[in-house]
Amino acid sequence: MERQNNIVIIGGTACGPKAAARARRCDPQARITIVEQGEDLSTATCGLPYYVSGVIDSQNDLVVRRHDFFRNVMNMQVLTRTKALAIKRKAHEVESLNLETNRVSTIAYDKLVLATGSIPVMPNLEGRDLRGIFTLAKIKDANAIRNLISPREIKRVVILGAGLIGLEMAEAFVSRGLGVTVIEALDWVLPGLLDFEVAAYIERHLRGKGVNLLLRQRVLGFEGDGNGWVRKVTTSDGELETNLVLLALGGRPDTKLAQDAELTIGSTGGISVNQYLQTSDPDIYAGGDCIENINRITKQKVLAPLGSTANKHGRVIGTNVSGGRETFPGVLSTATVKVFDYNVACVGLSESQAREAGYDVVTCLVPGYEYATYYPNGKEILVKLVAEKSDNRLLGGQVVGPGETAKRVDVLATALAFGATVNDLANLDLAYAPPYSSALDPLHNAANVIRNKQLGYAKALTPMEVKNKLDNGDDFFLLDVRSPAEWGTCRIEATQARLLPLRELRARLNELPKDGEIVTFCQTSVRAYQAQRILNGAGFDSVKFMDGSIAAWPYETLETRSC
Amino acid sequence: MERQNNIVIIGGTACGPKAAARARRCDPQARITIVEQGEDLSTATCGLPYYVSGVIDSQNDLVVRRHDFFRNVMNMQVLTRTKALAIKRKAHEVESLNLETNRVSTIAYDKLVLATGSIPVMPNLEGRDLRGIFTLAKIKDANAIRNLISPREIKRVVILGAGLIGLEMAEAFVSRGLGVTVIEALDWVLPGLLDFEVAAYIERHLRGKGVNLLLRQRVLGFEGDGNGWVRKVTTSDGELETNLVLLALGGRPDTKLAQDAELTIGSTGGISVNQYLQTSDPDIYAGGDCIENINRITKQKVLAPLGSTANKHGRVIGTNVSGGRETFPGVLSTATVKVFDYNVACVGLSESQAREAGYDVVTCLVPGYEYATYYPNGKEILVKLVAEKSDNRLLGGQVVGPGETAKRVDVLATALAFGATVNDLANLDLAYAPPYSSALDPLHNAANVIRNKQLGYAKALTPMEVKNKLDNGDDFFLLDVRSPAEWGTCRIEATQARLLPLRELRARLNELPKDGEIVTFCQTSVRAYQAQRILNGAGFDSVKFMDGSIAAWPYETLETRSC
Repeated sequence: MERQNNIVIIGGTACGPKAAARARRCDPQARITIVEQGEDLSTATCGLPYYVSGVIDSQNDLVVRRHDFFRNVMNMQVLTRTKALAIKRKAHEVESLNLETNRVSTIAYDKLVLATGSIPVMPNLEGRDLRGIFTLAKIKDANAIRNLISPREIKRVVILGAGLIGLEMAEAFVSRGLGVTVIEALDWVLPGLLDFEVAAYIERHLRGKGVNLLLRQRVLGFEGDGNGWVRKVTTSDGELETNLVLLALGGRPDTKLAQDAELTIGSTGGISVNQYLQTSDPDIYAGGDCIENINRITKQKVLAPLGSTANKHGRVIGTNVSGGRETFPGVLSTATVKVFDYNVACVGLSESQAREAGYDVVTCLVPGYEYATYYPNGKEILVKLVAEKSDNRLLGGQVVGPGETAKRVDVLATALAFGATVNDLANLDLAYAPPYSSALDPLHNAANVIRNKQLGYAKALTPMEVKNKLDNGDDFFLLDVRSPAEWGTCRIEATQARLLPLRELRARLNELPKDGEIVTFCQTSVRAYQAQRILNGAGFDSVKFMDGSIAAWPYETLETRSC
Repeated sequence: MERQNNIVIIGGTACGPKAAARARRCDPQARITIVEQGEDLSTATCGLPYYVSGVIDSQNDLVVRRHDFFRNVMNMQVLTRTKALAIKRKAHEVESLNLETNRVSTIAYDKLVLATGSIPVMPNLEGRDLRGIFTLAKIKDANAIRNLISPREIKRVVILGAGLIGLEMAEAFVSRGLGVTVIEALDWVLPGLLDFEVAAYIERHLRGKGVNLLLRQRVLGFEGDGNGWVRKVTTSDGELETNLVLLALGGRPDTKLAQDAELTIGSTGGISVNQYLQTSDPDIYAGGDCIENINRITKQKVLAPLGSTANKHGRVIGTNVSGGRETFPGVLSTATVKVFDYNVACVGLSESQAREAGYDVVTCLVPGYEYATYYPNGKEILVKLVAEKSDNRLLGGQVVGPGETAKRVDVLATALAFGATVNDLANLDLAYAPPYSSALDPLHNAANVIRNKQLGYAKALTPMEVKNKLDNGDDFFLLDVRSPAEWGTCRIEATQARLLPLRELRARLNELPKDGEIVTFCQTSVRAYQAQRILNGAGFDSVKFMDGSIAAWPYETLETRSC
């Protein structure tokens, strides 16, 4: 009989248990041990904001698999409340500490899996150890927050960081009746994911829900009361009273064990692995939040701390520690987050990321509807695509709004995995029926806008470029081609702005200067582009339309009703 | 100055207006004429079932663009209530009849576009001209149906055909309080789209909504009352009283003009076109329901009469009649339809279609949830994938259920466009957050089930194979590895069936025969596959699990509550 393969897995949240379960199914005879510091395995930490809000009732719902499943069904050794102290690579052993008994023991391995996850980033600020200051990484963090807010005695919460967890928690706290301030040091919300004008669309919604959003502000420190509870947050712009502070500044890979064992750590700070998710020691694999991944577009190393990625890692590792040879192709940094009544989703590179990485890009900003326009209750979405100017290759997409967005981003994620161009995207045979989409989906329209730009038919300015021209007092016509009723409801206030409905355009061409600069806009850009082409056809050469038009205008408008 | 390009478009529903609008934007100087028999252009015929149901209030909502838009904004000549009688190819002329004045005229063209659509299939049956027998292709059909059902005097409706429109109209009529019978000559609903066991899942839902579903029945004729109104439908199995009959037997391409002009017609019955959507006459283009398309998987010609495809055709044609050279890559026969509270979507080849086309296939049947399982109110979906056995290449997918399905099928459609394998699918970086999906989406799980089958880890029988064995009285263990509570709620009644919960399996191996045949099942197959692997590991060699388990079992169960 073959020698029993001895697999030890450190970390029991997502990648670890998945690797263990996969290894068991691949190799029914292996000896498999999971080492986990906490009390539970297989906890759904992505659900924590919904447990704080009460959308998820019980913490038991967040434990996807119980110990007895791993023991009795999977036939594994489960060491919870056990901390791995050190890896002895030569001896193929892990030294571990039982946190209950304080006993140190040694666990032998043939193959070791590091699924040690990430550690919340802690700011180095005065007062950060005050009571009432939390991070949110474990069920116990969520319970501590619930215990503090449940008596309904506290009123105000300050969240540091407007990333995924910061915004999910803003919603959770608002739903609990608390006054919420979110402080972000950078210029816009979800700065690692979205571009400015797309983020602005979300910011309007956040503010509309009562969130006090403070951008470009640095937190300087915290002050407490006599009992050591946080009471005040000091920022670069002033002070905020508060009863609770959530630090939502992201995480960094937990690489201590790996570093101590002199495994290679990448420049991103994550454990370096090859395509088989093997570390620099071929008997040690690593996956989940603690490693760095290949970005499938740029081929650069990136961190991708998401449960979806961790689970895929787990399966690959489970296969490979059992003698298989599966590869992990990398990530696209796909993300989605519910922000109150808006759905936010993105994939690949944002425009700012793409430009930073040196790509020459073409973009579009296309408002649309989730369903056929004539099907009732369809809600708006806004699509931004980023493509390479030289060859139309898609680089990324952002889709946000009250309507369905994850579907569109999943299509983009699939297209990006195959190096699709916007031409490919424009002719995808997506599922169409009025309750689900338009005959041409906003994604198709967005791809076509980029194609029209590349052909020179469509000439556009971004809303930011238009705002700049307005702020500079440039001499141009900002031509609103909507109806007088739409103009009455909401408009861009500027001396350059002027109403000329599309239907009247051909008849009133003489009112426009042939040699002057004209920028057209409407509600969604459809009419604005049409107007541009009519004007081009009539010999007006210096005409552009504004990408996304009013629906994507990230600045103030003059309005009597919502645009 | 260059000579003005003279473009004539016959057909004003979807492809025609799209081609016209695109041509106008590409060529502001062209002369563009649209010829349409009906009163309106750009009608959303896909919305007709929702107009009959009342979900869409006004027929105006179904006219996407008005005449004055085409005239004043697009600067086109719009000839409505005008029938194209003949194409004179040599003279480059179309002979047309004004249906109002009965005057015949001649329209010259440089480029001609045929967007003549399809004609509802009419059965050659006695009594088919009785009053109260309808097809549904135009707004006037929908108005005639509304007028008949609105006074609430009629009670019963019979629909012939359980295709897309048949099922949409079943829902529409039920929502209007009518008793609905659907008669389908073939063996299951949506026979051109789904496989038997997936259709069975929909059929349960239809019957649960009160639809009287008659499969494998032929209609022999109709009988009327003294006033010529239909009162009875005679079928191969008997007679049905009715007040209204809807013929929903699909459409066939309207190729009369093309045939008369001796353009090539394909074997599918659609006008033959090349990748530029040019007919056998290079000055005549055709698109929409009247042409045949390339299926991107099989490379065979197929009909694809959908608004989504027609609009894409229109854009390609509009470009090409204006001097461009754009190609249309073909279709994947993607479709989606709302069937009461279920969402049905599919793409590519069904298993039966794939086998008929000669593919050696591997399939899976994977129940799952639309969201993270711990996020509340997530609804079930059922995923069936079909892949090539030789190389894991995806051939098609069907996703149905009360949960979200169009997203999954759009991902599959995108993957299929690039010739993806199930390995590619398994590692797609899809957007994950608890309100939108699981860390591993049902699509990922489905891809992994196929990979496990291909590796020999997973061995499965389809529900149909299991049913066959039961019906044959085969000697085997049908091992239900769910909990006693689940068994109590709903189970498969068979002498071979036996309960042995997964948690107890390792301890009770001695109750099972090592050399006997065992088929495991559970609720969704996850535990059943686990049980198979445990048994394999313990030396049981003849073990399979049932694909899809109870959630996808298309036959009767013994139940105290819904499974």
